[in-house]
Amino acid sequence: MNEPVFWIAPIAAVLALIYARTFFKAMLSHDAGTARMREIGEHVRQGSMAYLRQQYKIMLLVFTLLAIVFGVLAYQFELQNPWLPFTFVFGGFFSALAGYFGMQTATLASTRTAAAARTSLPDALRIAFRSGAVMGLVVVGLGLGNIVVWFLLANLLVPEGTAGEGVRMVLITTTILTFGVGASLQAMFARVGGGIFTKAADVGADLVGKVESGIPEDDPRNPAVIADNVGDNVGDVAGMGADLFESYCGSILAACALGAAAYVTDPTLQMKAVVAPIAIAAIGILLSIIGVFLVRTKEDATQKDLLASLSRGINASALMIIAGAAVLLLLLGIPNVWGIWAAVVTGLVTGIIVGRSTEYATSASYRPTRHIASQGEGGPATLIIAGVGVGMLSTALPVLAVGTGIILAYWFASGFDLTQMNLGLYGVAIAAVGMLSTLGITLASDAYGPIADNAGGNAEMSGLGAEVRARTDALDSLGNTTAATGKGFAIGSAALTALALIASYIEVIRIELVKSGQTMLTLGHGMTVETAQATLTDFMIFFNVTLLNPAVLVGLLLGAMVAFVFSGMTVQAVGRAAILMVEEVRRQFREDPGILQGTSQPNYERCVAISTMGAQREMILPALLAVTTPVVVGLVLGVAGVIGLLMGGLASGFVLAVFLSNAGGAWDNAKKYIESGYHGGKSSRAHRASVIGDTVGDPFKDTSGPSLNILVKLMSIMAIVVAGVTVSYSLI
Amino acid sequence: MNEPVFWIAPIAAVLALIYARTFFKAMLSHDAGTARMREIGEHVRQGSMAYLRQQYKIMLLVFTLLAIVFGVLAYQFELQNPWLPFTFVFGGFFSALAGYFGMQTATLASTRTAAAARTSLPDALRIAFRSGAVMGLVVVGLGLGNIVVWFLLANLLVPEGTAGEGVRMVLITTTILTFGVGASLQAMFARVGGGIFTKAADVGADLVGKVESGIPEDDPRNPAVIADNVGDNVGDVAGMGADLFESYCGSILAACALGAAAYVTDPTLQMKAVVAPIAIAAIGILLSIIGVFLVRTKEDATQKDLLASLSRGINASALMIIAGAAVLLLLLGIPNVWGIWAAVVTGLVTGIIVGRSTEYATSASYRPTRHIASQGEGGPATLIIAGVGVGMLSTALPVLAVGTGIILAYWFASGFDLTQMNLGLYGVAIAAVGMLSTLGITLASDAYGPIADNAGGNAEMSGLGAEVRARTDALDSLGNTTAATGKGFAIGSAALTALALIASYIEVIRIELVKSGQTMLTLGHGMTVETAQATLTDFMIFFNVTLLNPAVLVGLLLGAMVAFVFSGMTVQAVGRAAILMVEEVRRQFREDPGILQGTSQPNYERCVAISTMGAQREMILPALLAVTTPVVVGLVLGVAGVIGLLMGGLASGFVLAVFLSNAGGAWDNAKKYIESGYHGGKSSRAHRASVIGDTVGDPFKDTSGPSLNILVKLMSIMAIVVAGVTVSYSLI
Repeated sequence: MNEPVFWIAPIAAVLALIYARTFFKAMLSHDAGTARMREIGEHVRQGSMAYLRQQYKIMLLVFTLLAIVFGVLAYQFELQNPWLPFTFVFGGFFSALAGYFGMQTATLASTRTAAAARTSLPDALRIAFRSGAVMGLVVVGLGLGNIVVWFLLANLLVPEGTAGEGVRMVLITTTILTFGVGASLQAMFARVGGGIFTKAADVGADLVGKVESGIPEDDPRNPAVIADNVGDNVGDVAGMGADLFESYCGSILAACALGAAAYVTDPTLQMKAVVAPIAIAAIGILLSIIGVFLVRTKEDATQKDLLASLSRGINASALMIIAGAAVLLLLLGIPNVWGIWAAVVTGLVTGIIVGRSTEYATSASYRPTRHIASQGEGGPATLIIAGVGVGMLSTALPVLAVGTGIILAYWFASGFDLTQMNLGLYGVAIAAVGMLSTLGITLASDAYGPIADNAGGNAEMSGLGAEVRARTDALDSLGNTTAATGKGFAIGSAALTALALIASYIEVIRIELVKSGQTMLTLGHGMTVETAQATLTDFMIFFNVTLLNPAVLVGLLLGAMVAFVFSGMTVQAVGRAAILMVEEVRRQFREDPGILQGTSQPNYERCVAISTMGAQREMILPALLAVTTPVVVGLVLGVAGVIGLLMGGLASGFVLAVFLSNAGGAWDNAKKYIESGYHGGKSSRAHRASVIGDTVGDPFKDTSGPSLNILVKLMSIMAIVVAGVTVSYSLI
Repeated sequence: MNEPVFWIAPIAAVLALIYARTFFKAMLSHDAGTARMREIGEHVRQGSMAYLRQQYKIMLLVFTLLAIVFGVLAYQFELQNPWLPFTFVFGGFFSALAGYFGMQTATLASTRTAAAARTSLPDALRIAFRSGAVMGLVVVGLGLGNIVVWFLLANLLVPEGTAGEGVRMVLITTTILTFGVGASLQAMFARVGGGIFTKAADVGADLVGKVESGIPEDDPRNPAVIADNVGDNVGDVAGMGADLFESYCGSILAACALGAAAYVTDPTLQMKAVVAPIAIAAIGILLSIIGVFLVRTKEDATQKDLLASLSRGINASALMIIAGAAVLLLLLGIPNVWGIWAAVVTGLVTGIIVGRSTEYATSASYRPTRHIASQGEGGPATLIIAGVGVGMLSTALPVLAVGTGIILAYWFASGFDLTQMNLGLYGVAIAAVGMLSTLGITLASDAYGPIADNAGGNAEMSGLGAEVRARTDALDSLGNTTAATGKGFAIGSAALTALALIASYIEVIRIELVKSGQTMLTLGHGMTVETAQATLTDFMIFFNVTLLNPAVLVGLLLGAMVAFVFSGMTVQAVGRAAILMVEEVRRQFREDPGILQGTSQPNYERCVAISTMGAQREMILPALLAVTTPVVVGLVLGVAGVIGLLMGGLASGFVLAVFLSNAGGAWDNAKKYIESGYHGGKSSRAHRASVIGDTVGDPFKDTSGPSLNILVKLMSIMAIVVAGVTVSYSLI
């Protein structure tokens, strides 16, 4: 590796893992509280691990099967990149490993946070946040570490001089891109399964506990209460972690592939373009670690102080990255250095705007959520109509932000020459890398949320005083705000990453065409170009990927439809799993009246098992939809249809995800707003309406909405994986 | 006009209007019932006309303003087709006229249907259905009549030899295409305004009447009851009529324009291709009239008999058209006659499949709606989650049907040569014409619904016996099934028509480019083609309308976003207008306790006025969004961005419309299913949940869903209208 800047990446990856270990050890050294607290913590921990074991079992099965299929395709029919079976398994394994570490940490940390909250708010914040940082740093450390290892390995194993130095690098980068397919598939399982688990438990616990039996939230008499707490971990920690592990790796790898393609004629510049995204990610890790240390607060901190303290860490990291990226890119000597740098900044700013707009749509400090709350006075119907309306309107800002971000990043990176499509799309990928460069710390503030939430649950169930609960509530409520921002980053980065992946798809198609002996492309009017030298536009013309090709249009329609059908499946899955939970809780109350009197302990494990079973069964079909659609569409409608499918899925999936997440978040906060005393406060007509709205929104915001991000990316990367089959066997 | 087949069109148009007049006179000759029935009928009639007057006032203002703008653009800056100010005003005027006639008929017919139901079910069916046929025949008669007049006029006024005979016909057809913009805009006002009016009244009447005061539906003590009945007319009669008037004209005109473009080099064949869609529409009118006469039933008819009788009429028309179109096309001697014929059949079959799939998703005879009803036992939250899930899953079949229809129509019409883009897209437009060829009778069965519904309301309010109410209920429930099919046709045809309009957009762009002196297009690799001879693919390449152009992608995102924001606006509008209605009904009950005791008459007019005001105020913003977006996107992102916007809006808007319509319809029927005795029947927990679900679904299925059809078409035709501005002034 003759590009010294590259070596910052392994250093950053190793440092991330070292600090993750340090924070983990530090967390473990804290007091885990009373025997009761430990006992409850252990329940949640056991439940979470039981769920993970079950999920990993199914994954093992699916991954083994698919690896064999990929192996046969690669070695028997030579329709597949021969590396794929291995990169596929590795991607899945490390994604699962990141989730496992995050979950271990979160479940151990929540009791300790609750214990610390007995005496000190700043201590509790530090424990919770640094435990969240373990997850953040593990994700970026493992992600970047893997990329480094595979990159070096591929450089070593693909013989030099293969198809010319420039094409060799395209081959290497598109090969390690397949690493993403395992990560995506595991993310899909983690997000959908975790999302179904958490909401089935939540809805089940609420419907019977709060609505039917009138016992408060987190009451230990509710048999589903442990499952509810487990759900926060499997959905928000393991699910979110796997999701962003995938986005993080995907954006870096897509940028590498597009960089390699953009400078295919000049190996020296090409290497710089490939190293740039890796180096930007590395500097992001280093500065995220510094940011984590900036998050601290004083004893009598208000909610505002807490938020300021978190924001200080995140904003400082972002500002330092803006400066650090400039230095790095200058050192690297990449061409159009300021254009590339501007793309990085565009990505960061876009992420912040999307996050802010999510906050505006869902926080009770602003008009939309307050409007929903006020409509609660007319009953559940008007409250739900208002939430649907707010959610739909809230799609405007994120789309405008991401749209502007795409155009600007393209414009900057192409040196203001819009016909330079390859350079421009490289810029879009770089913007995604920029947006995710602070992931180490933004993910920390995400993973922090469920830890604080669980700490509150633990405090309630252990019967700690109201003061302790007030402290954990302050931390929890802060978590909701940071989670909104985190979701904004997840959604925004997914859109950019998916676009970059779709562009990379063409590079893979190029390789497949060359492999199959098609060295020339016919462009109409008797014009031909060499496949190896063809521009992206040439490929668009060759495959007629224009908007009036019916295959493209039908692809667009199918993409929009898949987004809706996928959401329908996951929403229905939550409904079905929740009904099972409702029946189980009712059964326990009925068969043992001692539970509600507090004299006998409910069977928590049974509820955890029911949610686990429901989640496992229900996650198969949506995952299958995501995996098979690009294959089937490719076989029937060809390359043009596939790109239509991916773009339609991206456009509709993005907008639908924002709608679902924001409507759900706004209902949740409208309920909290009413509970804080507005429109009649607790037990008023408006409050009853808002509880219904919140329940409707639960699968929207925590299952379907976030899973759509992965759907969009998984479809893109599946298309990449089966490109060889599409090129060889499509009908049209 | 040297194509004799053409003259079937004016004959058919005149016959349609003559039969409409005959059916109208026949309806008037029937007994209008007791004094009480007449009085109530008069209330509804006055309310409906008051609403229409108000809507037409606002339209007059908007149309005058826009006509001046178009005039200035056309005559001052020469950026506009000089015919536009006139075609625009005419399109709006005739669309409004069709709505006005339909409304007159519907309001007069409902009392007479109720009166006939006192003695005979077959009589009641015949009166209601033939009155619906007045609407159907007026729409197709005025639509086709207008097209004939403008076509002859343009042929007369555009001097022969203008830019060569072939290009002259392209000029003529794209000129009369602008006739659609007035029709679209008026349809938008009618659909959105009518949709807001009807649902504000419905939700308001239900929330205070049924839920708070416990009085039954259609009870004359409810002050909003007249407004509710008025709403059925302004939403389902005038709104639906204007919508389909626009689809009908749009599909024919787009097919003419694409036919002219496909045969630009051969004026004789060109004329045949232009006349074909007009002639198919004409034969459709003649056979629809025959179909209307086939709808009759016997005295002791069951629900099944009624449905069979309606289906007989519709199916017979469809089958006769399949045969008639073959004869006609052979007479015309159009090239690839069987391919074109197959496209017509494809359109008809696609419409039927989409209609059936709507029925499957929303009828209580099938699993999805029964599933929703069963989830009502868990309360409103699980019922609503189930409905959202069902609605989302129900998008699959219509998308697959329309997607297959597009591919097949394109394939047949292109003579199985997919590179013949112009011929293929002409086939898609012909398929839309085929789907709408039976409009005379399908619209009759749509407009029949609100007549039967209002007849039931009249029977209830006039205190007619239970037997009479049972008869009108049978007619009403039949109306719900046919309305589902009708919505399927409206949605399916909108998708095909929008696609055809987008293709026509390119033809308009061609004319604008030629006008602006750009006689050659540069296609890259040093290749150029003559603008006048360029294929659609050449234009796609010239404007880089490929899926990797960031302008296209951002356009796709914006299109998806506009569909959601538009729906959010209309949903919110219903919520706001409903709250005003709730307050008014509560106020009347509070200030005059005699109303609920039945001793004093409520103030119906005030409720009508409130809904009218609400609808008028709230329809401005969504209409503005639809009109301005294509202009702004054109100025910023150019032709590629506009096509992206239109395609994104089409894909997402179509899927979203199906979701909203089906979820709303399924909730409605789940409620009726529970009321018929399942899951505890009326007043059970499940029933209360289903009333909430129905209320949530009301704006989905009757305001936002159907309005999306028009949004998609209005954006396309606005893009066509401002093509000159886009070509001359876009930034990118």
